[in-house]
Amino acid sequence: MEKKQVPAIGIDLGGTKILAGLVSSSRLLGEPMRVPTPKGPDNIIQTLLDIVEKFQKETLVLGVGVSTAGVVEPKSGEIIGSTGNLPGWTGTKLKHIIQDKTALRTVVENDANSAAYGECHASGLSHKTCVIMVTLGTGIGGGIILNGRLYRGAHFAGGEIGHIKISMENKRLCTCDRWDCWEAYGSGRGLLSTGWDLLQGLSEDKSVLVAKKDSLTTNDIIDAAKAGDMIAKKAMQLYHQHVAFGMVSLCQTLDPDCFVMSGGMSKFVDLKLLKELVQDWTIPVISENLEIYPACLGEAAGLIGAAQLVLDAVHDVEEVGAAG
Amino acid sequence: MEKKQVPAIGIDLGGTKILAGLVSSSRLLGEPMRVPTPKGPDNIIQTLLDIVEKFQKETLVLGVGVSTAGVVEPKSGEIIGSTGNLPGWTGTKLKHIIQDKTALRTVVENDANSAAYGECHASGLSHKTCVIMVTLGTGIGGGIILNGRLYRGAHFAGGEIGHIKISMENKRLCTCDRWDCWEAYGSGRGLLSTGWDLLQGLSEDKSVLVAKKDSLTTNDIIDAAKAGDMIAKKAMQLYHQHVAFGMVSLCQTLDPDCFVMSGGMSKFVDLKLLKELVQDWTIPVISENLEIYPACLGEAAGLIGAAQLVLDAVHDVEEVGAAG
Repeated sequence: MEKKQVPAIGIDLGGTKILAGLVSSSRLLGEPMRVPTPKGPDNIIQTLLDIVEKFQKETLVLGVGVSTAGVVEPKSGEIIGSTGNLPGWTGTKLKHIIQDKTALRTVVENDANSAAYGECHASGLSHKTCVIMVTLGTGIGGGIILNGRLYRGAHFAGGEIGHIKISMENKRLCTCDRWDCWEAYGSGRGLLSTGWDLLQGLSEDKSVLVAKKDSLTTNDIIDAAKAGDMIAKKAMQLYHQHVAFGMVSLCQTLDPDCFVMSGGMSKFVDLKLLKELVQDWTIPVISENLEIYPACLGEAAGLIGAAQLVLDAVHDVEEVGAAG
Repeated sequence: MEKKQVPAIGIDLGGTKILAGLVSSSRLLGEPMRVPTPKGPDNIIQTLLDIVEKFQKETLVLGVGVSTAGVVEPKSGEIIGSTGNLPGWTGTKLKHIIQDKTALRTVVENDANSAAYGECHASGLSHKTCVIMVTLGTGIGGGIILNGRLYRGAHFAGGEIGHIKISMENKRLCTCDRWDCWEAYGSGRGLLSTGWDLLQGLSEDKSVLVAKKDSLTTNDIIDAAKAGDMIAKKAMQLYHQHVAFGMVSLCQTLDPDCFVMSGGMSKFVDLKLLKELVQDWTIPVISENLEIYPACLGEAAGLIGAAQLVLDAVHDVEEVGAAG
């Protein structure tokens, strides 16, 4: 096997499950393994080490990439920011622990950054000046890739785009306890809020959603819009505007080549309409050649990106060595 | 004279005047020369060539850096975007023209980018991960420096931050013909609009500004606020919020080390208050160590930055050559 094809282990550590697999050339080799996330940092670390050991027994690997929630200091691989989904995880020196126990080169990276890196490289976009991944889920996350490399920011929190402010009206409180962040409008939660706003004071004959008001879900709105319900259609139209809104700020700041749209909510976004809205609201020199692509890696994006980061780190070192 | 100290010629081409001088180590050597901008591209080019020839006769120079309005393609130095202040300027292959006629290495760069580069290097911030210059003038401009290098974007329009959208209310039309851009609020024009909004329906006893309403200037508002006029003070308070607002989006996207505030309006901004507002509205991991500095180069920032760009290009080539 040529060295360029030797895989790395990719692990995505989520709040409820851990996904892991072997990755080569930004592609997953076979089906990923899937285990529930255990409780507490010590149990999580043991599970991660067990996963690495299992893969190591089966095949030669170049390293381990771990995608995790939280702000990560990339040199030490320490989790330095709070992670609501993984209590007690802040302060874990994960890179050193895995490296010491397995003798494998290890990269630990924030989950949104890992996914962005994976999508960018798997889609052949690593030669672009600027690729922005926007993840539309319960919240909004993001990752910025400049010239094929992750942009991490001065305090490793670059791309925390969900908290861009898009209104001065103090209308919606965000989960971060500040007003009118992008994700209070453009996330799944944001769509629900938009739905509730539109249903205020409506009688049941105006929309099928009125009867469901107390237990409304994003799927209720999406399904009703597909079935032609006018209020639900209005909610989806506003949702597209809300998503486009934050993207305009990103365009005006970074002048990207393209966006890659991922996350559960992105499946319900009409990318053609979204592109038209972003183009209408952005200056022409930026918007004329802008592209918006759907993500292609699904739930494996984080583990693929983290593994690719360690593969590229190993290959980079070798190339610099060969050139010197 | 050591080669590192040999200066470059810096020229800032503005809509009404041209500023030029010799620059070494991000510092202007002596007073800049100042000539009115002539009408039409041919006359402008001849004036630029005359300036270069004058400096060349006096001293040895390493190159020429030109800071100009408009979007510039940096490799060819062609002005590719519209420039209202310089009619007919789009399409000018300025770098090639100057290089051919003077045999000097030439850099042509957008004025906001040049100024940002100059300020960043003159303030000793070129080792920082991310420095964002915000220019508060009649409009809002900006420049982004990542790891000491200009970030230009995919279509050379990165840092066009004046057209970040900060409201969804369609309240103020921007000069770009879109609604609610940052500069419709945070520029000098924005402060005037805020003043007019507050004066609607007020009687003369409520504010000294009411009598001046038809010919209101930013200075009227600033002076009245200093003198204690409540309406003017309210306008200045809102102005600080409006400026902070766009900066929050920049923080959440780029997680910068610091901002450098320049432009005529920045002199009237209380940077301590501005920092408090930005910090209140930004997630802590980003805002805790954020700094906001005043610009230090004044009107010479553009010519200094353009000259420093050509100096660094020459020195970079030599360093790579020496290392190879």
